[in-house]
Amino acid sequence: MKILVVGSVAYDSIRTPKGRRDRQLGGSASYFSVAASYFAEVSVVAVVGQDFHPRDTRLLESRGIDLSTLERAQGNTFRWTGQYKDDLNAAITLDTQLNVFEDFRPSLNPAQARAPYLFLANIDPAHQHAVLDAMADSPRMVACDTMNLWIDTARPELERLFPKTDALLINEAEAKQLTGNSTFAEAAHKLLDSGIHSLVIKRGEHGAALFNRDFIFATPAMPLSNVIDPTGAGDSFAGGFMGYLAATNDQRPAALRTAVVAGSVMASFAVEAFGLERLADLSQDDIRERFDEFIRMTRFGPEEGASQLPLLNF
Amino acid sequence: MKILVVGSVAYDSIRTPKGRRDRQLGGSASYFSVAASYFAEVSVVAVVGQDFHPRDTRLLESRGIDLSTLERAQGNTFRWTGQYKDDLNAAITLDTQLNVFEDFRPSLNPAQARAPYLFLANIDPAHQHAVLDAMADSPRMVACDTMNLWIDTARPELERLFPKTDALLINEAEAKQLTGNSTFAEAAHKLLDSGIHSLVIKRGEHGAALFNRDFIFATPAMPLSNVIDPTGAGDSFAGGFMGYLAATNDQRPAALRTAVVAGSVMASFAVEAFGLERLADLSQDDIRERFDEFIRMTRFGPEEGASQLPLLNF
Repeated sequence: MKILVVGSVAYDSIRTPKGRRDRQLGGSASYFSVAASYFAEVSVVAVVGQDFHPRDTRLLESRGIDLSTLERAQGNTFRWTGQYKDDLNAAITLDTQLNVFEDFRPSLNPAQARAPYLFLANIDPAHQHAVLDAMADSPRMVACDTMNLWIDTARPELERLFPKTDALLINEAEAKQLTGNSTFAEAAHKLLDSGIHSLVIKRGEHGAALFNRDFIFATPAMPLSNVIDPTGAGDSFAGGFMGYLAATNDQRPAALRTAVVAGSVMASFAVEAFGLERLADLSQDDIRERFDEFIRMTRFGPEEGASQLPLLNF
Repeated sequence: MKILVVGSVAYDSIRTPKGRRDRQLGGSASYFSVAASYFAEVSVVAVVGQDFHPRDTRLLESRGIDLSTLERAQGNTFRWTGQYKDDLNAAITLDTQLNVFEDFRPSLNPAQARAPYLFLANIDPAHQHAVLDAMADSPRMVACDTMNLWIDTARPELERLFPKTDALLINEAEAKQLTGNSTFAEAAHKLLDSGIHSLVIKRGEHGAALFNRDFIFATPAMPLSNVIDPTGAGDSFAGGFMGYLAATNDQRPAALRTAVVAGSVMASFAVEAFGLERLADLSQDDIRERFDEFIRMTRFGPEEGASQLPLLNF
């Protein structure tokens, strides 16, 4: 098992301009693990309720995801109700019911405690800390995500968490919320100054950018005409990102850059259908073709660089 | 003379979070011509009032811009008053006074009427049509720009104009305003379907994208920490875009892609200071370094494409 993820496994009720779903399998750990599963073996630490349906267990298992520590507790599965209006980049949370996550105490088996890659997906920072503290060895890489709810209610816990991770993956709104800054570039520099090693800002329709001390990398998003359901795009991004890094065992700049693109590729699949319908149903060819499309969309010359720019001598 | 531009030469009064300026040289033709002047010879068709200051004439002439048909009329120079609040991508127009542009009748000298490259910068579509109709030969390339004001008040004139051009350069808000669509990708496809050949969507902090029947190209923007004054960024983008194409005499896909990057480079300079202060004061090295920075920011591998993606056999 390469990647351990702690996060939510949930039932989402979604309304988008393209339709609605009630009680669809979701949650940060679900989207992350499905996306990452195309690259590396993933194990999930989370809890579901008695209402968790066998069909949903089967969907995750069909991607080879290790559910041996997906606990089952008395009560109901985490529930999220959200809506997207005109701005598909911004999920409006109508309701969150932690349910069985209220009393969740993550516990790791020995293999998980030595996982080389750890993703602390969006969940109560207390659970993120608990899993990080339970690791027996220092993972090769720890990344984490959060959301506006935790920035509002648990900022000190988050600020204690960030310096213990190698990468923070957040979206543009969260970056601005954390820093009060008006551009994501200013927000990024402030966050790096606060001790974060690498910062990946996921920008929905606007792509993604990675900032660290050594370089900046930015990529646009696929200009998709048909965004059906943006739910889980960020978690899918994270799955592609960490999946790629885990599969290559490489965290050098070139690998981090390609990982951002891999993340964008997986996110682009997630939004094409409701829930996990598309993301869980990809072939290797699908993923390679989308990656090649990304290359075609972003490549420009001259290969030799700016020495070729035809500037007037003036 | 390679590029002819018709557009506004104006005095702008600006307020941004970083400060304010009153009566600073601006206008779509000013920003365009200064940006393009680093690549090719530009000639301006516009009108200013008796209040136009010699220092502003000198600034444009210092970039080698041909002002022989910059008319001088009784009355005052075009005046724009605008503000940027938190969202630096969106200029809020507080006041527009056409002044001498009210009675403007563009007239071209013989050399201008045979200009190989024509840019119809943001101005009353009636003036854009007048100049296009006054061309003696069909230019190698005609591009145009507009703004929300003209989409609101002169949409039929714009819709007659677009199919007569090779490229429409607009920003994301304008694309959505023209089509009523919620994502810029959907808006782009609708505009292409309506007869536009190439569409460049300038997205401020979010980069730029070019759509035509053959390919899509997208690039992020430089994540600039210090945006002082966004005024003229779009017009500067257009100047870099057309300047590059005019200098290379090439409109093939690779050239169009690099032109989008050249536009982004020029826009990134424009915003670094108020008005034209920075844009008018660049060295060739400045531009080449920024272009190389752009390459470093966006390059990713593997060079061999997606066949190298480490996907699990599952």
